[in-house]
Amino acid sequence: MKQGKILIVSGPSGVGKGTVLKELMKRHPNMRFSVSATTRSPRPGEIDGVHYRFLDKASFEDMIARDALLEYASYADNYYGTPAEPVQQALEQGIHVILEIEVQGALQVMSRRKDAISIFIAPPSYGELRRRLYGRGDTAPEVAEKRLKIAIEECSHAQEYSYTVVNDNVDEAVQEMEAILLAESCRSEFRPIHLEEEL
Amino acid sequence: MKQGKILIVSGPSGVGKGTVLKELMKRHPNMRFSVSATTRSPRPGEIDGVHYRFLDKASFEDMIARDALLEYASYADNYYGTPAEPVQQALEQGIHVILEIEVQGALQVMSRRKDAISIFIAPPSYGELRRRLYGRGDTAPEVAEKRLKIAIEECSHAQEYSYTVVNDNVDEAVQEMEAILLAESCRSEFRPIHLEEEL
Repeated sequence: MKQGKILIVSGPSGVGKGTVLKELMKRHPNMRFSVSATTRSPRPGEIDGVHYRFLDKASFEDMIARDALLEYASYADNYYGTPAEPVQQALEQGIHVILEIEVQGALQVMSRRKDAISIFIAPPSYGELRRRLYGRGDTAPEVAEKRLKIAIEECSHAQEYSYTVVNDNVDEAVQEMEAILLAESCRSEFRPIHLEEEL
Repeated sequence: MKQGKILIVSGPSGVGKGTVLKELMKRHPNMRFSVSATTRSPRPGEIDGVHYRFLDKASFEDMIARDALLEYASYADNYYGTPAEPVQQALEQGIHVILEIEVQGALQVMSRRKDAISIFIAPPSYGELRRRLYGRGDTAPEVAEKRLKIAIEECSHAQEYSYTVVNDNVDEAVQEMEAILLAESCRSEFRPIHLEEEL
């Protein structure tokens, strides 16, 4: 069984990460999203273990103490993080695990898992990013402006990722992500040659 | 104009490097072989600048002194090497340059050009390599045996290359090489995001 890979994927709001990842997963059924753990309360319709793994504060802090998270952060008095164990189990079953996380979490995972593949999904241009954020119609200009500022800050971290995929065209972006996965599986460290054994 | 890349390709005799590279070049016209320089005499039919760049010993040694070679070695009292300048010119025209060279030369290029992509083409198994070397029909068993020993020694260096492509099936091997090229062009260092400039 060939081990799966961790795919760290970040990119600003409005860049089309969801569309690209959905299409990638359609083409590669041996791929799944990691389920984050959180201490916030479930919202109506959210299912434990599907949308989030809902934990109480003590359990989450116990995971922190046991170093059982690939990354975590706290927002608005709640913890959010990625439990390491389910990721590891999936990898051992040959499943690629996508961590769709923001920059700070991504950097934490990169420093812990040198074998993770990190991809930043970038907008083709400032103008296009702006159009996508404002163009949603239902977004107030102040909200769009704030998202745009955050997006620009996020893009300033792209160089910390191994790869940058520009989402100008979904099909091309998916092809690049597929090429990255295939190329990474060709790294010599994962393909030792054992000719001597057969002698 | 997007700069081309240096593709260092090595692999033992009998592994099918030629077939794989020919098919890769058929699919990617913006790719060419580097022409080696040598001090040996041209054989009948060999054209200067096509098969080799034929130089006298003084000119070759002048290139060594000027550090104008990406790699060189001497065999049987003759020099063989890769002049850096034509490679650089092709790269600047957006052409990928294939250096099909043996292990020692490959290691020299890797240490000089950190931006070169290094690929080792490996046989699927010892049995298959043996079959390919002996199966040529016209090869004396002592010659095949000697080539096999050299091949095994060469394969022991595969880990020094970034990628290992196993040539079990030519089409799959070419697809892997294409994926490596595309993935390498997605490296964040080659894709800086300049959103601020447009503000």
